[in-house]
Amino acid sequence: MKKTINIGLAGYGTVGRGVVSILLSKNEELSRRAGAKLRLKRICDKSFADTTKGKTSPRQSPPQDKNIKGLLPAGRVYTPDIEDIFSDPEIDIFVELLGGYQPAKRLMLLALDKGMDVVTANKNVLAKDFNELLSAAAKNKRRIYFEASAGAGIPVIAAINEGLCANEIYALTGIVNGTTNYILSNMSEGKADFADSLKKAQKLGFAEADPTLDITGGDSASKLAILSSLIFKSHIKPSDIHVEGIEQVKPFDIELGRELGYTIKLVALMEKVKPEAGTALAKSGAAFQVAPVFIKSSHPLASVSGAFNAVYLKTDAAGDQMFYGPGAGSLPAASAVASDIVYSARHIMEKSSLHMPFFELKNKPPRIADAREVESCFYLRFTAEDKPGVLARIADVLADHGISVASVVQKDGFSHKAVPIVVLTHEARTGNLINAVNEIDKLKMVKSKTVYYRLLDI
Amino acid sequence: MKKTINIGLAGYGTVGRGVVSILLSKNEELSRRAGAKLRLKRICDKSFADTTKGKTSPRQSPPQDKNIKGLLPAGRVYTPDIEDIFSDPEIDIFVELLGGYQPAKRLMLLALDKGMDVVTANKNVLAKDFNELLSAAAKNKRRIYFEASAGAGIPVIAAINEGLCANEIYALTGIVNGTTNYILSNMSEGKADFADSLKKAQKLGFAEADPTLDITGGDSASKLAILSSLIFKSHIKPSDIHVEGIEQVKPFDIELGRELGYTIKLVALMEKVKPEAGTALAKSGAAFQVAPVFIKSSHPLASVSGAFNAVYLKTDAAGDQMFYGPGAGSLPAASAVASDIVYSARHIMEKSSLHMPFFELKNKPPRIADAREVESCFYLRFTAEDKPGVLARIADVLADHGISVASVVQKDGFSHKAVPIVVLTHEARTGNLINAVNEIDKLKMVKSKTVYYRLLDI
Repeated sequence: MKKTINIGLAGYGTVGRGVVSILLSKNEELSRRAGAKLRLKRICDKSFADTTKGKTSPRQSPPQDKNIKGLLPAGRVYTPDIEDIFSDPEIDIFVELLGGYQPAKRLMLLALDKGMDVVTANKNVLAKDFNELLSAAAKNKRRIYFEASAGAGIPVIAAINEGLCANEIYALTGIVNGTTNYILSNMSEGKADFADSLKKAQKLGFAEADPTLDITGGDSASKLAILSSLIFKSHIKPSDIHVEGIEQVKPFDIELGRELGYTIKLVALMEKVKPEAGTALAKSGAAFQVAPVFIKSSHPLASVSGAFNAVYLKTDAAGDQMFYGPGAGSLPAASAVASDIVYSARHIMEKSSLHMPFFELKNKPPRIADAREVESCFYLRFTAEDKPGVLARIADVLADHGISVASVVQKDGFSHKAVPIVVLTHEARTGNLINAVNEIDKLKMVKSKTVYYRLLDI
Repeated sequence: MKKTINIGLAGYGTVGRGVVSILLSKNEELSRRAGAKLRLKRICDKSFADTTKGKTSPRQSPPQDKNIKGLLPAGRVYTPDIEDIFSDPEIDIFVELLGGYQPAKRLMLLALDKGMDVVTANKNVLAKDFNELLSAAAKNKRRIYFEASAGAGIPVIAAINEGLCANEIYALTGIVNGTTNYILSNMSEGKADFADSLKKAQKLGFAEADPTLDITGGDSASKLAILSSLIFKSHIKPSDIHVEGIEQVKPFDIELGRELGYTIKLVALMEKVKPEAGTALAKSGAAFQVAPVFIKSSHPLASVSGAFNAVYLKTDAAGDQMFYGPGAGSLPAASAVASDIVYSARHIMEKSSLHMPFFELKNKPPRIADAREVESCFYLRFTAEDKPGVLARIADVLADHGISVASVVQKDGFSHKAVPIVVLTHEARTGNLINAVNEIDKLKMVKSKTVYYRLLDI
């Protein structure tokens, strides 16, 4: 029996460094669990090129890293040339930590073709091309592991695929982006505005120099696509998801929400839409969206603050389940990658015939419901003239669209010309609400665009 | 290759019914995941004896159960005789859901000897005889699965054994008993006292007719023993755990705690004790205890209310992780049992050589630290005469024992003869605190036994 599992790792960035550090410092324990010596045979990163002599060649000595000093393996381990991994017939597991789309995807497919298992943290490639990667794994009787692709070190992918395999998961509410959760938490606590909170997040390393993908909700959507694909066993694509970001969130609404007992969070949502007899929507399906929403402050998800992540699942047998942990960072993500490596090694050692033991994306896809079909309670903040009859007029339009009011709060205004009127609604169809808001925003007495958020009933 | 996995299940109580229901109603999906047809071949329960003819013999028809009607397998499946399982050479997996200690333990050992894998929800046997069961499994090259033994359907055992296998877990704080959490939540919300809350819990089915094991903390201790054994890979026994229950908790302290920003919870705690140079405690070790404590109300664990459970882990790589879900109930526990059955079936199908793939309890045990060694902040409620100098005298004794006061709150008294004085302390060694309290309680001006709870800093 094979006694050593050889690993080729590409990408020595934040996560790559963490993985190398863990694999070296905990090698004995991890090898014991894997049932074979885990050997980091090749680590590839462009930065390892020695360009001092005017040509690209491997360095003689490994890169300096005080965290893993003394643990660095000797010999020609660090290389700038990816071919050093793919031309080595001994490599059993290809660990892809390059991030981005290409060349990551091409290299993962190449690794599977060469008979290697793949461990990756790459949410972009998976969200977009899940089926293609799984098919390549199946064709080659290899496996692909990706626990770190959503929720960093939180073992939520294993929970969905294995621990909860006897459940139908009928709703998912995830806080899956640490940057936006940090910004919203900071806005909630410090009453700072969005721009200042973003700057603070960047300063503290919780937001990247270009935070676009985070704050627009794109990153959350990729993770939702991956988690939802596992739930439906059918590829849910980022394009199936209705996405809103947090750029427009105002401290004023956060504070008002807080007074009403709600906390704002950017959430990734999967919810099954009930068929409604006798209507055009008489079909079941599922809606996928990323949006800032209000959550009851007593709910466990409301206490997920700062850069933490959590995934909240509603299941038919195991009830409500929540998995919570840091959403990003070198070691949390590396923790997931390392457990995937152990998993892969064990399957290789066992000569497992299961090419994809956990799931297959072979189910019929659900009907993708439009976000407008979703029923929800809402928080509405109108900005209107401070004179008699305004609220009645607004309530009339809401009623015309079948939306009933649960409570009304009138606050002091920003200016003496307009006052904010906050309305909490009973459950209403999102499409009806949007139509009502559009109509109300055309009224002369309404002075600026109405702000609305879902009040999430979880 | 074997295409059917035969299951023998013993114990048709709350959990047993849930497992049968899930295995029958979701058979196709679970079989697909297992890679083999999962066949419930024998279900054994004493209640299946047909005593109408004066003798114990299997019934001709299965028991009536409207939840699983139409799904019940035909033939001689339901039996009162456990020998029908053990004399059947086709049985691959023995599912032990009898609960209690004997005959459950004897039957699990017998099943392993007969070459069956064992799936169990039995916290009592595991907490007490973990090593013996694992040794029997190893000797027979079989496996034992027990996800349902702590936290019901929450896949926290898989998380510790697999998803977080690259981590050192240096602290665990678990709300692992639904009954006591329900009672404390009810006392917190309704300001009801302990006795009334217990009655309500019994009425709603959240507490058993004899709730002793729950309210004294014994049930939490069993679960802590199991989870800690996995963390240390060494058998931590219930006798290693310092246990206090919730019988003495008063609504008055809950309310005071709430005002100070804390929520009371019965928690199971594992914490590593730091070695302290130059003292008698210059050894590392770990302390294990079950006790009611105060948790900051903003902490995720504080929002775990009602019959929910949660396990909060502090790890070196993946940071703080929390796993949350219903702590008991037929279907939540059955969800975990079903996923263990799938796991077991997959290993049998793969002819896995790993007799215990996830862990072994072979590490050197940690030094079991006394609960008195633990450092913590504390909530103290003294009941003393309402006259000058009392607080100064109390503060003197605290200072003599090296305990420094963080804040003091004086409240209106229960009677005009004595007032409650609440003191929050800075970090102090538990042993010193107990000594100080014992000394204070001997003072003439102190009118009743001082109440103290840890203020948990997590």
